[in-house]
Amino acid sequence: MKQAFYLFHTGRLRRKDSTVWFEPLVDETSHADGYDDTLLASIGDEMTPEWSLKRSDRNIREKRVIPIEEIDAMWVMTELCMNNRFFELLSRHQIPLFLVNYRGNVTGTWWPGQMAGESPVLLNQASSILKAEQKAYTASEIQLASVVNMRQVLRGHRYHGCPFGDSIAMLEAEIEQWDRLPDESARFLAEARCKKEYYTAIGSLLNPPWTFSGRDRQPPGDPVNAVISWLNTLLYGTVATEIARAGLHPGLGYIHSNRVNRQSLALDLADIFKPILADRLALTLFNRRQFSPTDFETSPDKDGVWLNRAARILVTREWENRIKTTLLHPVHKRSMNWRQIIRTDAICLRHFIDDGSDLQFFELPV
Amino acid sequence: MKQAFYLFHTGRLRRKDSTVWFEPLVDETSHADGYDDTLLASIGDEMTPEWSLKRSDRNIREKRVIPIEEIDAMWVMTELCMNNRFFELLSRHQIPLFLVNYRGNVTGTWWPGQMAGESPVLLNQASSILKAEQKAYTASEIQLASVVNMRQVLRGHRYHGCPFGDSIAMLEAEIEQWDRLPDESARFLAEARCKKEYYTAIGSLLNPPWTFSGRDRQPPGDPVNAVISWLNTLLYGTVATEIARAGLHPGLGYIHSNRVNRQSLALDLADIFKPILADRLALTLFNRRQFSPTDFETSPDKDGVWLNRAARILVTREWENRIKTTLLHPVHKRSMNWRQIIRTDAICLRHFIDDGSDLQFFELPV
Repeated sequence: MKQAFYLFHTGRLRRKDSTVWFEPLVDETSHADGYDDTLLASIGDEMTPEWSLKRSDRNIREKRVIPIEEIDAMWVMTELCMNNRFFELLSRHQIPLFLVNYRGNVTGTWWPGQMAGESPVLLNQASSILKAEQKAYTASEIQLASVVNMRQVLRGHRYHGCPFGDSIAMLEAEIEQWDRLPDESARFLAEARCKKEYYTAIGSLLNPPWTFSGRDRQPPGDPVNAVISWLNTLLYGTVATEIARAGLHPGLGYIHSNRVNRQSLALDLADIFKPILADRLALTLFNRRQFSPTDFETSPDKDGVWLNRAARILVTREWENRIKTTLLHPVHKRSMNWRQIIRTDAICLRHFIDDGSDLQFFELPV
Repeated sequence: MKQAFYLFHTGRLRRKDSTVWFEPLVDETSHADGYDDTLLASIGDEMTPEWSLKRSDRNIREKRVIPIEEIDAMWVMTELCMNNRFFELLSRHQIPLFLVNYRGNVTGTWWPGQMAGESPVLLNQASSILKAEQKAYTASEIQLASVVNMRQVLRGHRYHGCPFGDSIAMLEAEIEQWDRLPDESARFLAEARCKKEYYTAIGSLLNPPWTFSGRDRQPPGDPVNAVISWLNTLLYGTVATEIARAGLHPGLGYIHSNRVNRQSLALDLADIFKPILADRLALTLFNRRQFSPTDFETSPDKDGVWLNRAARILVTREWENRIKTTLLHPVHKRSMNWRQIIRTDAICLRHFIDDGSDLQFFELPV
């Protein structure tokens, strides 16, 4: 099964035939605590340090060899050196690479040429967004799926004994009258009401000392928001990857304003999965007591809260484990992992754009 | 003045504050003949080898420090190692990076996020292409500018004593009746006739032993075509860069079919400049006797002719020198180098898309 590789350890990435070699480096400037095996697959037993530019290097520890077929995406979270042939290999195999800083901001993305939007599809996609009625319909379906999934997440918790009757009833009522909402702004207001109710309910599930009174971002102002923001960064990249694989352009969206340098379609579709993948996982991690207050750092100007390196690794590992779990897709009746489920939604949108096929986004079964 | 940097020598590229450090490496696998100073600016006198991952390295020769403000684009023509912070710096300063193999194929491109098409403009651009009349008009204006520039190049040679009367008259006649051509396919045929006449005339200017009987590409079948193809690769990247800087998407074009992974708008606008920049320069280089037959290599399957490393460096250096020369722009009445002239055409198209401003592409004054 393909998986994403998250690089938290300083080193080098280079191509060797149809594999990627990761060669971790140790010196006085890097973290000497080693890198986490669960974040980088170890394949084969080739342990000879070798590097095309340097024939001998005492600082290179054993390398890891990753067959290109196993890579879904590369995430570079640290100082890393990569060679041109590595990028060529990524391009040939349609693998994106994300550069992420410690605040969880994507500071650059390597999009293989064919993933930057197939031009004929791009024209269709733009055409669909330019048609006011199609744009409004698509946006409405995405928002509805997002609200339905908020309700499903709350329902899931109710089955575990949480008294969410009022919140669920409120979301229920909004969903019931969704199709009768007169226009776009009414739907935006309804979605905002649902989000508020949903986040209040979610916040009440948190065990002390952690608190959460709603989303607060760019920058996040507390530990819970910091973890959700980090997870959302991982979710956006995952959704953008699947959108691009479906041949659509991640930057042309239906809901999020088409501003410069925003992956607006990725932000759109991510809303469907945020309650299920990001919020639920954050809640689980906090309630499992996997964090201590020292895992979080406040920026010097008190303007934001960030995860420290250990917490970033922890959250990222749990994220990758979570999205590799499988589920019976309620419509396609096949067992799929979360990447495949997201891909199914992107392909569904692509078919809708191509020939007006039914638009039916993922709704979590409970 | 900004310039493109072309890396032909194995080494490392990394960020140091707001500069790029190029650290050439020497070992048994790299070319030991040194790298060419004209292809990499040497700024300052900092000669201390230093590298964040390696504190001491006998193989690092003196580094070159390039202030980011001087970089227009990076072209990687060899085995090179680049760090993540280097890519972040490129993204922040809107500098693309092209990976090119020895055959002149672009095997990957780093497009800074904001250069991948501002979404609102992308919608306008798509909308303009979706309107059949606007698409046909724009395509026609591009083709006409291309044919006019073929004529101008021939006229330039006539002033130097070449008897091109018939060819010029033929192009003249096609240009004169251009606006009366009934449809797109008539214009395509007219353009093809002009190209044939033009390339025959150009071929007659070549001194022996070189011959040229028309364009032959993917792969090029003879030395002259090989040089033109290499120059066209440099031209496409330069045009794509200026298109992206103008906020347009290089992949959504008017003439070249919007196929997957093709920079079709870059191919469109490059046609305006090919006669002036690529063909003329190739002719000059051959007639100045700057090549010997050993500068070209035939692929083992006899399926193509390629430039050797020295010839690639020679042609690239001459290209960069050529596009840095300035000219009085016939419309804007300002002295501009060729990058600025290409940018002016991209901005002109952007204004046409935005608000229907006049579309007037560059025509070479003679």
